[in-house]
Amino acid sequence: MAIVKTFCERHGMTIPIVQAPMAGGPSTPELAAAVSNSGGLGSLGVEYLSPRQIEQDILRVRQLTQRPFAVNLFSPDADQPLAGDFAAVAEVLRPYHERLGIGPPEPPASPGENFVEQLDVLCRLHVPIVSFTLGLFPQAAMERLKRESIYVIGTATTVEEARLLEQSGVDAITAQGSEAGGHRGTFTTDAESVLIGTMALVPQIVDAVSVPVLASGGIMDGRGIVAALSLGAAAAQMGTAFMACDEAGTNAAFRQALLEAHEDQTTVTRAFSGRPARGLRNEFIDQWNNSGLTAVSFPWHNTLTRPMRRAAANAHDAGLHSLWAGQGIRMLRQGPATSIMDQLRQEIADSLENARRRLPAALQ
Amino acid sequence: MAIVKTFCERHGMTIPIVQAPMAGGPSTPELAAAVSNSGGLGSLGVEYLSPRQIEQDILRVRQLTQRPFAVNLFSPDADQPLAGDFAAVAEVLRPYHERLGIGPPEPPASPGENFVEQLDVLCRLHVPIVSFTLGLFPQAAMERLKRESIYVIGTATTVEEARLLEQSGVDAITAQGSEAGGHRGTFTTDAESVLIGTMALVPQIVDAVSVPVLASGGIMDGRGIVAALSLGAAAAQMGTAFMACDEAGTNAAFRQALLEAHEDQTTVTRAFSGRPARGLRNEFIDQWNNSGLTAVSFPWHNTLTRPMRRAAANAHDAGLHSLWAGQGIRMLRQGPATSIMDQLRQEIADSLENARRRLPAALQ
Repeated sequence: MAIVKTFCERHGMTIPIVQAPMAGGPSTPELAAAVSNSGGLGSLGVEYLSPRQIEQDILRVRQLTQRPFAVNLFSPDADQPLAGDFAAVAEVLRPYHERLGIGPPEPPASPGENFVEQLDVLCRLHVPIVSFTLGLFPQAAMERLKRESIYVIGTATTVEEARLLEQSGVDAITAQGSEAGGHRGTFTTDAESVLIGTMALVPQIVDAVSVPVLASGGIMDGRGIVAALSLGAAAAQMGTAFMACDEAGTNAAFRQALLEAHEDQTTVTRAFSGRPARGLRNEFIDQWNNSGLTAVSFPWHNTLTRPMRRAAANAHDAGLHSLWAGQGIRMLRQGPATSIMDQLRQEIADSLENARRRLPAALQ
Repeated sequence: MAIVKTFCERHGMTIPIVQAPMAGGPSTPELAAAVSNSGGLGSLGVEYLSPRQIEQDILRVRQLTQRPFAVNLFSPDADQPLAGDFAAVAEVLRPYHERLGIGPPEPPASPGENFVEQLDVLCRLHVPIVSFTLGLFPQAAMERLKRESIYVIGTATTVEEARLLEQSGVDAITAQGSEAGGHRGTFTTDAESVLIGTMALVPQIVDAVSVPVLASGGIMDGRGIVAALSLGAAAAQMGTAFMACDEAGTNAAFRQALLEAHEDQTTVTRAFSGRPARGLRNEFIDQWNNSGLTAVSFPWHNTLTRPMRRAAANAHDAGLHSLWAGQGIRMLRQGPATSIMDQLRQEIADSLENARRRLPAALQ
């Protein structure tokens, strides 16, 4: 009988936790390294970083840990040609630029970073794991990653997407439930129309594919981790759970907003990036919804709103920043990531035991 | 130390499964009795039934089982005075009435059944458990149920709703995650804006109240049940899981549509009842969305669309019937309810063991 390693065994993990990549601030080399050093799998979300910044961050992780980690990009399928009414969106942004004391919104010179150049860095530095979201990876990219023996994780929000990912050759699939904060990974249909909860999504994807499935969306503590494993997941991916920890790059205004937030205050919006993402409702989202406008195509819209978001972070103005967060927000905790990992380890044992105790005597 | 009975112990359950009430067809005395006889807790959804029909159904359950069962009503808070553009809604219905060969849509003479008369039956027959959704019960109703020593279960879709229910004196709370089929229980805010997934909702409600919490939404097999217990729930409430079983009253066209459906084909709509409910997208929902109309107030809208829905069921026309279903739909199974209950019992043991095995060695 062949020895089949589980996902955790394959990556030397002693606790079934993948730290979600969280591009655009919260993701730091310090956070990824702390999670990996604690026996989980840390991730860097590098979508918005230049090849040079990506290289620096990867080298920094390697200074801090000897253990495996993942680096996350968006699929280039997510990139659309420039389309949409730039001038109309700029009119919505203009008063906020004035309030923040920055120059008027200007058309971005380029949409964002170059995927091939970004991937080059990951391959050249031979990172152990590459994860991605918002589509499939091009066949050439998949072949290159395979040649380099890099482990590949894709993201699915429906059973159909999971099947497409498996066919494309990924080694594992993150099942992103509707509870999850940040960008929706949906790539086969309209993201807002298929917000499938983690409880329903994970077992249906597990039944449909033969690769390991990571559960994400609403998992904030040991209870959620054991629930994820019960549903058939190989591990739990957790993002929001780490957003207020010491090592996260979450800016101060964002952090404060997260700590005060309730589970009923998130929404899925295209206001900030042009792509549907879950975050805390705030002034800009409400203003955007009132405008009735359609976003400029991704990633142009994201680049267009970046000056406002950056200035808002500096000015501690949570009303104008993208406050990506999941629906488990009341369970958020602070402190060093290693301390949170220690708590999670204890909670896993407790939750498993509590689940057993909650069973009627005949089933225990 | 006082002996505190768990929810399952209190109701003599040998398996932590509550069959969801599913008013409007799927709920039958035979289904409720089969689930209770198998060691779970069966429920009757009697919202749309006359006091006389309710009495008959309760007596029938009592013929079939000696075990506890629940009877479910909507809160009278859900009822609104007649408001809305009846004529415009009738124009949307008219071609479907013609297609089905029934008379043109007419204004309902009355909105629906009388809550006080319905509750009278439940108290007079002294049912063991009354559950409700879509609001709080009036204080007089709560006092009467307490006087009769009837156990009361409310429904919450947010932490705030759970707290209000606990303050109102309920004995347990069903946490209805966004995956759930049928009417959204939301009563403090706009239901479509707070679709919180079961994975996130259950532990946050468990943390906020001291009464037992039942998890509902997306739970279809033993994996989901163990996940629910891991999250802190006292039991799992399952509706869609029983919709295609032999004892369910689900009509033939509805049953066929359910068996062919995928997890990404449900939507939350007001098209059929005027209240947001999750069901399979079909022709009438699409037509309703295209109309851009606002529903007539609940329950008037529900009564207004009833002739179409009834005729559609008789004509095996799934395009015009309300196909309430949750997001776990691919996991649906057929057969006798007792056989499904037997499978679930075995799956619970398997899922608990599998969750443990999936843990890295150090945590097992």
